Amino acid sequence: MTTRIQGASSAPVRQSSVRAHNLALVLRTVANSEIPISRASTSAVTGLTRATVSALVDDLIAGGLLTEHDPAPRSGAGRPAAGLALNPDGAFGLGLEVNVDYLAACAIDLSGVVRRRVVEDHAQGDLAAMARLARPFVDDFRPAAAALAVPGLVSGDGLIRVAPNLGWRDVDAAAALGFPVTVDNEANLAALSELRAAGGRPSFIYVSGEIGVGAGIVLDGELYRGARGWSGEIGHLTVDPDGRPCRCGARGCLEQYAGQEAIHDIDGAATALGVALSAVVNLLDLDTIVLGGIYGPLLPELQPGIERELRRRVLTSDLAPVTLRAAALGADAAMRGAAESVIRAVIDDPATFLKPQVAGLKP
Amino acid sequence: MTTRIQGASSAPVRQSSVRAHNLALVLRTVANSEIPISRASTSAVTGLTRATVSALVDDLIAGGLLTEHDPAPRSGAGRPAAGLALNPDGAFGLGLEVNVDYLAACAIDLSGVVRRRVVEDHAQGDLAAMARLARPFVDDFRPAAAALAVPGLVSGDGLIRVAPNLGWRDVDAAAALGFPVTVDNEANLAALSELRAAGGRPSFIYVSGEIGVGAGIVLDGELYRGARGWSGEIGHLTVDPDGRPCRCGARGCLEQYAGQEAIHDIDGAATALGVALSAVVNLLDLDTIVLGGIYGPLLPELQPGIERELRRRVLTSDLAPVTLRAAALGADAAMRGAAESVIRAVIDDPATFLKPQVAGLKP
Repeated sequence: MTTRIQGASSAPVRQSSVRAHNLALVLRTVANSEIPISRASTSAVTGLTRATVSALVDDLIAGGLLTEHDPAPRSGAGRPAAGLALNPDGAFGLGLEVNVDYLAACAIDLSGVVRRRVVEDHAQGDLAAMARLARPFVDDFRPAAAALAVPGLVSGDGLIRVAPNLGWRDVDAAAALGFPVTVDNEANLAALSELRAAGGRPSFIYVSGEIGVGAGIVLDGELYRGARGWSGEIGHLTVDPDGRPCRCGARGCLEQYAGQEAIHDIDGAATALGVALSAVVNLLDLDTIVLGGIYGPLLPELQPGIERELRRRVLTSDLAPVTLRAAALGADAAMRGAAESVIRAVIDDPATFLKPQVAGLKP
Repeated sequence: MTTRIQGASSAPVRQSSVRAHNLALVLRTVANSEIPISRASTSAVTGLTRATVSALVDDLIAGGLLTEHDPAPRSGAGRPAAGLALNPDGAFGLGLEVNVDYLAACAIDLSGVVRRRVVEDHAQGDLAAMARLARPFVDDFRPAAAALAVPGLVSGDGLIRVAPNLGWRDVDAAAALGFPVTVDNEANLAALSELRAAGGRPSFIYVSGEIGVGAGIVLDGELYRGARGWSGEIGHLTVDPDGRPCRCGARGCLEQYAGQEAIHDIDGAATALGVALSAVVNLLDLDTIVLGGIYGPLLPELQPGIERELRRRVLTSDLAPVTLRAAALGADAAMRGAAESVIRAVIDDPATFLKPQVAGLKP
């Protein structure tokens, strides 16, 4: 029994914030429409007057975010209205990933289509090299903003606190890259991308296999970040308390058995993943496990061993099935998630994007 | 920017449901007031008219849930209004717990005060014995309803699917007890009780040490139940993959090292708890661990070993402190949580409680 009141709040609402709210409402309405939508229908869906919708639409067209198509010819009677649609070229998101042995970048357009991608394998995970790889994207696409995926712990202010497998501590990525960038954990960004691809409000754990092993936990359609934003460190779950030493200082961490450098022993990796994933299911009662990174293509080989351990170790294994599947987006999930986060920010707050002083990243 | 509209909904709202909503609103307003509150103030807080509030208050007084006190004499000028307060004797909640080696029951009144409790140690965990223990509570308090805490997996319809340490499978507790009862996992109920005692919207894991070891996970002020309601099975996290056999069929489960039957080896128990809790913190980035059941009084002995493993195995241990503390409510937490769930239901839906045909449990 709650309802949304435009501009309702306990404090007086400034005109500019009402406009920003309504611009986002109109843009989201057009973005969510499967077919071009008329100004009149946009007014009906949003509850805003036709005059207000028209003024906002004009601003969004002038800012390049929307286009208005002529109506398609129709055989029946009556004249169909002109339709509004996102202008795919209206804004671009730059998604970057620095990992231990590769660098990657992609540009996606406002409709979410990847317009260019580059992956450099066997590269040193290094921000100067990342900046060189990103430069042509900045020049050619003038992205609205950039987002970077890293295999490490990122604090709220964007500082990379620790990336054990890169040997990084307290790294300011924006300063090193030479342009503004938001930073997030690679498994979190990949999980968000997987969530958008899945749609709805699913719950799952996305496990990202690289040199390190991380996870993004999605509960009821929301990324669960934890008290400090450092959830999902499945790579450091203990699978053998006196086992192999890990870069983190502990012994027997999952990533020493199932990270990229250990995966050649596929049975050992599957068993270790099964032990760690059993802990996840026992704790969180998730019914879906998504395997990404190097695990996606290896799923047929890994699945029997993982499922054997799940059957053995999950208390509810005979009551409640757990689905194991490969990530929909494969190895690109993290950089896609990064680029999508930029586009998401434009669609959620077009007013900021349209401000004349905010012209995106400068070439 | 949301606001609550009385009776607003997409479907037509029946008068009876508006009345039920408003009864709950008035009762909650009085319950949340630290001091007796006047009818006029209740009208101001709820936004309901004075006439509506008065009619609802009269019904709540007639049903025994509220009392109206005369104003306290005051030295200053002006006549203070009469004050409304919960009537503690207006409804009772019966909380029951069946565990592997004890039975417990308590009655709490509408204000949450425990009015009687009984604990029978070294008892067989058996529903016929539980029914005998509960009988005087039913006779003397005529509780609004009863709730039962069990160390097992409970399905949405109240069936106890599995309680490994009781050897139960598919047990219908209400049928065995001979009176209606809601059933929930003991660690979940204890975590809810701990949450109410803490107030606010904390995140923590409550670990319940008995013969078995379970947990309730509270995220941002809400109990996290999982896809099927079977989250928190920390007792079956693997702390040694080839270790001691467990009743669940797996090997190396935490409860074989830190359950009541193994706790005499305090260092081994602390290490095992530390390994399992490190997995919890690595996955969920929780900053608070609450130890209940047998662990509460043992905390001083357990703490050094648990904290050693947390320092060693939690990736963020040098960045983010984790607080380890004993449960506020001690061994009573689960049955208190059960009894509170009954009172909560009365306060959330007084209309159902006030219906003449619902007179609580029959003696």
